[in-house]
Amino acid sequence: MSTTTQETHNGVNVTQLVETVGAIQNDPELATFRFRATNTWLGGGHSRTSIDGFWGAGQEDASRQEPFTLDGDEPPVLLGSNHAPNAVEAVLHALASCLSVGFVYNAAAKGIEVRSLDFELEGELDLHGFLGLSEDTRAGYQNITVTYRVDADASPEQIDELCGYVQRTSPVLDIIRNPVQVTVARA
Amino acid sequence: MSTTTQETHNGVNVTQLVETVGAIQNDPELATFRFRATNTWLGGGHSRTSIDGFWGAGQEDASRQEPFTLDGDEPPVLLGSNHAPNAVEAVLHALASCLSVGFVYNAAAKGIEVRSLDFELEGELDLHGFLGLSEDTRAGYQNITVTYRVDADASPEQIDELCGYVQRTSPVLDIIRNPVQVTVARA
Repeated sequence: MSTTTQETHNGVNVTQLVETVGAIQNDPELATFRFRATNTWLGGGHSRTSIDGFWGAGQEDASRQEPFTLDGDEPPVLLGSNHAPNAVEAVLHALASCLSVGFVYNAAAKGIEVRSLDFELEGELDLHGFLGLSEDTRAGYQNITVTYRVDADASPEQIDELCGYVQRTSPVLDIIRNPVQVTVARA
Repeated sequence: MSTTTQETHNGVNVTQLVETVGAIQNDPELATFRFRATNTWLGGGHSRTSIDGFWGAGQEDASRQEPFTLDGDEPPVLLGSNHAPNAVEAVLHALASCLSVGFVYNAAAKGIEVRSLDFELEGELDLHGFLGLSEDTRAGYQNITVTYRVDADASPEQIDELCGYVQRTSPVLDIIRNPVQVTVARA
């Protein structure tokens, strides 16, 4: 594949994708990424997260002109003011966004044209955990269901195979399905 | 505590908090919540999540005037267009937002005044997993570190005890630290 012709599928630059894979195979250290966020409490259940630079591909990324901000809050029934989605709803967003990227990038790599892709997610949670009313009830989601609809230039079997691959390689799905070590410390 | 006098700490209605706990103790079914999100792919790494109603406290919640939208995208180094934070950055937001709510609500319940609360988060990820270049490398975060600064009307020992309780009851921390069953199916 020539580096002067940029092959694009689904809005994804497949030439750059192939070059990225090659670069990491030559220098595995390029695969190390460190993402960051800061968060400031604003009052009640309302807080604001700021996301900007990160380390990746061997350098500090400076591509963002200004920080992204994401607010979090609770609905009134959970004692908040509905300024923003709550934290567990944000988890569903993170999962959907990750599956979308995985689906579209891997379809592009296989030359599958995707015309539309939509997800519906639902997570069930028992408030006994968060409220400390039961030590037997986990605080987080009991389970999450994801349903997707895709219109793509591929057979149902190819879609299912692609979806299986996406599930095996999705960062957020891995974070949710499998344990991640989290250290929390006072500064 | 009278229900006609609303006791508030840190912007949290502690009277309502106590009433919520009491209501759930009387009727455990009220603790069942089902949160939802839908997501539509917009092109390349860019997608948009919409979050609106949910089931909770025994009924469908209708408190939100219009849906919240959250975009996801990748930076150019990950073949995106920087329209929004990426999915694993959204996970850091979800975690920070959850810890903030947990900290402030539980401080309020204990009568601890919080003047300021800030979090810094970092997650390390090895792209070999997402790119399918290594079956030994997980796709998600290898680890996440959270550092917080709090100015509150409490001793360091009380803060540490509060933080321990928050960690045991945080929904998003539980989702990240422990396995959650996720079902993905084509519609």
